[in-house]
Amino acid sequence: MFRHIVLLAWTEDATDEQKAAVAAGLGRLPELIPQLRSYVIGPDAGVSAGNHDFAVVADFDGVEDYVVYRDHPEHQAVIAERIKPILASRAAVQYHV
Amino acid sequence: MFRHIVLLAWTEDATDEQKAAVAAGLGRLPELIPQLRSYVIGPDAGVSAGNHDFAVVADFDGVEDYVVYRDHPEHQAVIAERIKPILASRAAVQYHV
Repeated sequence: MFRHIVLLAWTEDATDEQKAAVAAGLGRLPELIPQLRSYVIGPDAGVSAGNHDFAVVADFDGVEDYVVYRDHPEHQAVIAERIKPILASRAAVQYHV
Repeated sequence: MFRHIVLLAWTEDATDEQKAAVAAGLGRLPELIPQLRSYVIGPDAGVSAGNHDFAVVADFDGVEDYVVYRDHPEHQAVIAERIKPILASRAAVQYHV
């Protein structure tokens, strides 16, 4: 299996509505991108200080399916319209699991 | 379930031996910390540019078990002796899944 992880941090002036729009937009992707085998997203629980604000863990059968997801127009639309306007920082890893 | 994710980036002068020592040190923790329900660690696959270098995804029954792991002396020893000497950047999220 091939796993993609991304952690996002929001700008200080990001609104709750904007943050919810990211979760809603990403949450639709499993219906639209059949290559997604598992998609576990959500906001940070607020337990530890200094964390990023939102996590995405996406599992695929292989790296080719990850690339389909990465470059998919519906995914790119969520990034451009909902994530980038409130993005302060991003960290990602893909690994074989 | 409660999930802890951390993505680590290494310094430019980190050696392969030092990176392997992190993986080996963390890899022992499931034997030592029974609160770990699932522990999936590994180096970045090198598919996308700009990524962090190493991922940890740890699952627990609840936040209390995560705190046991976070503060466990064997975990703290790996952080102090193997991770911090080569750590350039760290991003983390904990979330309910």
